[in-house]
Amino acid sequence: MAKILLITTGGTITSVTENKTLTPSSSHIILDTLKIIDPLNDYNVLDLFVLDSSNIQPEEWLQLAEKIYENLDKYDGIIVTHGTDTMAYTTSVLSFIIQNPSIPIVFTGSQLPIYDKLTDAYSNLRYALAMATSKIGGIFLAFNRKIILGCRAVKVRTSSFHAFESINLENVASIDSRGLTILNIPKINNKFNYCNKLETKVFLLKLTPNMDPQIIDMLINFGIKGLVIEAYGAGGISFIRRNFLVNLKKLIALNIPVCVCSQCLYESANFNIYEVGKKALNIGVIEAFDMTSEACLAKLMYLLGCSNDINYIKTNFKKNLVGEIKEETYE
Amino acid sequence: MAKILLITTGGTITSVTENKTLTPSSSHIILDTLKIIDPLNDYNVLDLFVLDSSNIQPEEWLQLAEKIYENLDKYDGIIVTHGTDTMAYTTSVLSFIIQNPSIPIVFTGSQLPIYDKLTDAYSNLRYALAMATSKIGGIFLAFNRKIILGCRAVKVRTSSFHAFESINLENVASIDSRGLTILNIPKINNKFNYCNKLETKVFLLKLTPNMDPQIIDMLINFGIKGLVIEAYGAGGISFIRRNFLVNLKKLIALNIPVCVCSQCLYESANFNIYEVGKKALNIGVIEAFDMTSEACLAKLMYLLGCSNDINYIKTNFKKNLVGEIKEETYE
Repeated sequence: MAKILLITTGGTITSVTENKTLTPSSSHIILDTLKIIDPLNDYNVLDLFVLDSSNIQPEEWLQLAEKIYENLDKYDGIIVTHGTDTMAYTTSVLSFIIQNPSIPIVFTGSQLPIYDKLTDAYSNLRYALAMATSKIGGIFLAFNRKIILGCRAVKVRTSSFHAFESINLENVASIDSRGLTILNIPKINNKFNYCNKLETKVFLLKLTPNMDPQIIDMLINFGIKGLVIEAYGAGGISFIRRNFLVNLKKLIALNIPVCVCSQCLYESANFNIYEVGKKALNIGVIEAFDMTSEACLAKLMYLLGCSNDINYIKTNFKKNLVGEIKEETYE
Repeated sequence: MAKILLITTGGTITSVTENKTLTPSSSHIILDTLKIIDPLNDYNVLDLFVLDSSNIQPEEWLQLAEKIYENLDKYDGIIVTHGTDTMAYTTSVLSFIIQNPSIPIVFTGSQLPIYDKLTDAYSNLRYALAMATSKIGGIFLAFNRKIILGCRAVKVRTSSFHAFESINLENVASIDSRGLTILNIPKINNKFNYCNKLETKVFLLKLTPNMDPQIIDMLINFGIKGLVIEAYGAGGISFIRRNFLVNLKKLIALNIPVCVCSQCLYESANFNIYEVGKKALNIGVIEAFDMTSEACLAKLMYLLGCSNDINYIKTNFKKNLVGEIKEETYE
């Protein structure tokens, strides 16, 4: 018997059809379903939001983090149901706010509502419950027969049941007829930490070859406190004609951190291969290595929430805090 | 015997190591290699640029398009070597500028320089040459044993040899011991067209849950002529608190087109499922369906280059011009 807290936030999983469109609704069916899957556990429920996850924003992240933190010592595991659209952003942000918890905090949802005859909701709730009772601490995402580390999850498919992938890291666990098989629990030399602060003025800029670098000056005027760039390939940034390096220098001179990841979904940014990358490192950009864009954004919001000391940001951005970077590759 | 034009633009394929970093260099080795692979063809070479593809921008696209157009009637096929980082942007843009050509125009490159002992350059040149002599018209990308339709290519891996994927469309052809096997040539009800104009003031905005919608007003002041939004999932855009719909309405009122694709790599945006999507359609955003972000950006730059009539843009953005949309799904 395990003590499980269910936190619901809305999403497709409990959506109902109104005027031929799906709208989030009451989530009592989720608790009922968990009780049927395993009646021996002791369940409590906290209905926190009834939101399409496109509307889940920093204010919801902080409320959700607080509720989870308050309950960490009272439960063996926590399940959070959440819309799929921004679930990977939420699991990434929560991974940094609640670092290395001792109990499993498992996010799940579904691509079809629980009321749909073909729904994936029941299966996903089974996987989430299995992970939530595993006694393995961490922030996870349970979906389509796999458990993904929260800070490595990305939604890569809009409609298929295999909507999420674990990027640049093996799945934490898989589910098949052998049950829940643990495949890979990242070893992190880092303790539990809770810091419920975020600097939300961090902008994610996906480069395109036609982009005018003056966009950077405009973002300075807009008041951004941090920038994540999705560069080309292993870290390409244009420096001829549209010379981004000149404009990025201005940001860096203002002690506004510039972190660079890749717009390629898979594999790592590496600034040491090409002339372009070395030029970027020379002006002081921070490499994101194999982090996802979601994790980069989350980590920079988190670090800037903790401190505005640029050296603190630089040092900690490159550290593996919760499994978001394969540190051995880069040290 | 086929008449083949080789156009070189730089990229990793001919890069050499200088001070431990890779820098693009002379491309004579590419022509020599093609002559060895098939000595019976008649080759000409045009060394157009020596650029890292992070520096290939609209000015290069237009020059390249012009050179290709000038030579369409003189050759059986054209091979363009190009850096991998922005190759998918270039093939997407060229697909719209030179629509449905009668000869194959095949882009290729490599993840390791041709001078590297483990290079993939020789293989990729073989695949490009096979496709360039296939007599199948179109803009293609040849890489790692597959031929991808140019407007469907995305670089998804920073380092592996299987760097590119054909998104939401089967590969055009595969290469194995049976030779070049044609798998799928999209049927397009559209004729050859050449229009070498681009509106470069199109901005690609990847939404994040912390983003302030006032960024839209700022982009208006910045003078953008078109906006491509990478929304969440099937087309999610926040409309509570950070209400993007209010700000997007201002753009739309100015007759600036707003096209919405998904930040998920795979599968289609579909605005008819969720409340959020319907709200977006109601204010007049244009759906990108299963187009890649690269193709959306390219198509909007191309259409705005042709006309600034919003109805022309709306009508044509939804049409399948070169295989970039699965039209049957949406009509």
